Amino acid sequence: MTLDTAPRARSGGRAARRALRTAPNFTMLPGVHNQLPTCEILAGAQVERIDAATMDILENVGVIFRDDIALADWRSAGAKVQGDRVYLDRGLVRDLITSIPATLTLHARDPQKSVALGGRDAIFVPMTGAPYLRDLDDVRRNPTLDDLAMFHKLSHMLPALHSSAHHIVEPYDHPISQRHLRITYSSMKHSDKTFMGMTTSPRNAEDVIDMCRILFGAEYIDTHPVVTGNCNGNSPLVWDETMLGAMRAFCRANQPVLCSPFVLGGANTPASVAASVAQLNAEALSALAYTQVIRKGAPAIYGHYLSTVSMKSGAPMAGTPEISLMNFMIGQMARFYDVPWRTSNTLGGAKTFDAQAGYESATTLSAVMHAGANYIWHSAGWNEAGMHCSVAKFIVDAEQCAMAHRMAQGVNFDDFETALAAVPDVGPGGHYLGHPHTQENFQSAYFMPELFDNNSIEQWQAEGSIEITDRALKHARKLLSEYQEPTLDVAKNEEILAFIAKRETEIPASDELNQSF
Amino acid sequence: MTLDTAPRARSGGRAARRALRTAPNFTMLPGVHNQLPTCEILAGAQVERIDAATMDILENVGVIFRDDIALADWRSAGAKVQGDRVYLDRGLVRDLITSIPATLTLHARDPQKSVALGGRDAIFVPMTGAPYLRDLDDVRRNPTLDDLAMFHKLSHMLPALHSSAHHIVEPYDHPISQRHLRITYSSMKHSDKTFMGMTTSPRNAEDVIDMCRILFGAEYIDTHPVVTGNCNGNSPLVWDETMLGAMRAFCRANQPVLCSPFVLGGANTPASVAASVAQLNAEALSALAYTQVIRKGAPAIYGHYLSTVSMKSGAPMAGTPEISLMNFMIGQMARFYDVPWRTSNTLGGAKTFDAQAGYESATTLSAVMHAGANYIWHSAGWNEAGMHCSVAKFIVDAEQCAMAHRMAQGVNFDDFETALAAVPDVGPGGHYLGHPHTQENFQSAYFMPELFDNNSIEQWQAEGSIEITDRALKHARKLLSEYQEPTLDVAKNEEILAFIAKRETEIPASDELNQSF
Repeated sequence: MTLDTAPRARSGGRAARRALRTAPNFTMLPGVHNQLPTCEILAGAQVERIDAATMDILENVGVIFRDDIALADWRSAGAKVQGDRVYLDRGLVRDLITSIPATLTLHARDPQKSVALGGRDAIFVPMTGAPYLRDLDDVRRNPTLDDLAMFHKLSHMLPALHSSAHHIVEPYDHPISQRHLRITYSSMKHSDKTFMGMTTSPRNAEDVIDMCRILFGAEYIDTHPVVTGNCNGNSPLVWDETMLGAMRAFCRANQPVLCSPFVLGGANTPASVAASVAQLNAEALSALAYTQVIRKGAPAIYGHYLSTVSMKSGAPMAGTPEISLMNFMIGQMARFYDVPWRTSNTLGGAKTFDAQAGYESATTLSAVMHAGANYIWHSAGWNEAGMHCSVAKFIVDAEQCAMAHRMAQGVNFDDFETALAAVPDVGPGGHYLGHPHTQENFQSAYFMPELFDNNSIEQWQAEGSIEITDRALKHARKLLSEYQEPTLDVAKNEEILAFIAKRETEIPASDELNQSF
Repeated sequence: MTLDTAPRARSGGRAARRALRTAPNFTMLPGVHNQLPTCEILAGAQVERIDAATMDILENVGVIFRDDIALADWRSAGAKVQGDRVYLDRGLVRDLITSIPATLTLHARDPQKSVALGGRDAIFVPMTGAPYLRDLDDVRRNPTLDDLAMFHKLSHMLPALHSSAHHIVEPYDHPISQRHLRITYSSMKHSDKTFMGMTTSPRNAEDVIDMCRILFGAEYIDTHPVVTGNCNGNSPLVWDETMLGAMRAFCRANQPVLCSPFVLGGANTPASVAASVAQLNAEALSALAYTQVIRKGAPAIYGHYLSTVSMKSGAPMAGTPEISLMNFMIGQMARFYDVPWRTSNTLGGAKTFDAQAGYESATTLSAVMHAGANYIWHSAGWNEAGMHCSVAKFIVDAEQCAMAHRMAQGVNFDDFETALAAVPDVGPGGHYLGHPHTQENFQSAYFMPELFDNNSIEQWQAEGSIEITDRALKHARKLLSEYQEPTLDVAKNEEILAFIAKRETEIPASDELNQSF
């Protein structure tokens, strides 16, 4: 795999360093290679206890697959099927999941932007599925295809984002039945990073795969993961027909599926962190196992959407201690089964981009970094429990991811002796700012967030008392003014557009424009 | 040691649980017993490399002690002293620090609120030293003794805070020369939790100790830690006369000193994370060693204030990746020397309580929890790089600490089998909210933040679109309206007041009311 290595400010003299400081840097950061020790909150015996409880659930409670093809597949695979309920023997489950690759490379159309996934390798993927946005004026409204394009452009330019995802926001100005085509095209056209594929129906998933065949070549994608498809479970212990059909489309094409139980702790799981994880684990394993029934050796990712619910309203919460604990635990379980895992990042339940959103998002980001997550989804923009994607928050979250990326590099000792030599030079009571080592290394030694204001209050007031939302929106406007579309092969572009045109004549345009995430 | 054990919502039936949900709970949470695995970012060999570099600094660069008594003490202890510079042999340093207790109990005047410190035991202490506050109307202004009392009352009532600290805000309405007496009295009077003692001069420190002798008894405090004193270093590698004199007052009285280098990474340390930690470590060890020269076996705490500075302005930053990394590293070094350690929490550089403050604070809180810190200072209120203490942020930070407290308890398996029994009861496709196990355990299974709003936007708007600052200020007013002063022995109270009156006749009232932190 070729990773893009961002240029470092380690050489080139003062003028070069100054240029680097002032020039906008849109170069994608390499994928995260997480050097943080994973937070092993469970003792080994507790991991085994959750595993045993999981297997008991799979064997004795079973999982509903609301899909005739899946039920037939499971019968052929040797599972006990009664009605729509599948009882999975632990031996069968363990045997099936062994063929899931522990690591994979997600290939981007710019090969420099391909990224590794699994083990210590992780990527940041922006949020998706918002039925509203808070726009460049912080106005909350329904999004359009142009808004989606804007978010794809920002994803392309923000260095810590490794993907342009898919429907970051729902484009309400296009018929729902044809929307997946325009969303996929927007991802492909506005960025050359990795992206995601729509799984809103089995046929829609097939369309996405067909578009990928045009973009990357049919033979190429049969051996190279180029697009991820998310399939949400219906907790407790149900997989629905739509998701299972989409799963088959992705697996048959050898594209990675995120097998994502959708957990609202306490509402669709027991009122117990450990038991909730056991149930979630059973759900994830049942889908992971099914991916290997569909195509043995196909890449698959242990996923989940995870929240705890408010006792007052039943609404999902973010940044709570149990969400962090469950992230640590699920990371351990995924590593126990040796499969890559997906989690959700920078979630916020606030209605505006206020301090609540900041606390919630940073708490989640920190937890998933310590948990050792691989596919770190919803890494930019998520607020109001996913009901809106905020442009301002998108920008700030992405910088937070850049900071987490730096933290995950751990401590650099390359320069240790040289840096130490400055200590006797400066001596007790001296200062370092004028020392040549400081001059040479300041820029690379300490991350300086662009969106955080650390000036004195007097200077901040003199500059207009601008709070973070307005600073971030100004930054977004500047980025968009400097956006350059990555070159897309003309013939491929025409072929994709012809495919969309053909499909849009085949698919009746639905009247309905509304769709929740 | 007696720890207060907060009542749990595990028994008592539905009515009792409802009462618990609606009644304000001011019961202090027990001290944190941190079950999170510590984030060991350094390999063992890297810890030894930093230790070796530290010892080289102490032996060959030396540390300036700007204080004749300290220099004489060091000569007697066998160190090489040239001018005001002390060269510390590694054997001498290692030998001296072995007598520092690895753990201690900080005793509160309510013995139920005494707390353990060291090893896995930690406490949350509010911020101190703010020259401004943002008050109950979010107005930024200079504080008074009444404002200080307000923060001491809030510290007393907020369950996750284990201390009322000392000068949370600087009371500008009292002469600076006498201020330490009123600050100490305010801590003692408005709360029966642990507190801190002023170290603004050696004589002021003596006054604090004398007041503690009245409150706790002179014999008692000679064998029981009841008050902590912070001594800031003057990085690089300087300890000043004021701090050293205050240190002696605390050590001689057997009270724990926080030995705190004041590090602005890149400005008064090298432009290298690893080398900065080596220098900070040398500074901390030189003071820790000196505490044992003063009184062998006296409790002492490895401390630091730690920030990185903005390249643009030289201002301290918060929530940056290097601050997190350095916290992980310093935690490892303190454990290597087997001494308790103090760090700083929930720091913010924002001018208002906006999203920036939220990100910065949560990032810091998370880092110090994973770093395994013991004395977690500045845990509530800190914003604008410490220039103001915000009432709103104080309330929210304290709830964040309560959430971290819950996270640090790790995963509860007591209830695992019972909770799992609900899974077959509910079955695939069912829901848990009506299940008896959920009814019984929902409240205790998932933390529900009071200050975070998780309602729908429609409900939030119907309630007046109130953002977190206003929600927190409303909560603060409610708390203050319900405040009940803890009973203070009448005779002791009179004796303390007489002491203050006597000292205030002895100390000339300075004209100057201004003092920076």
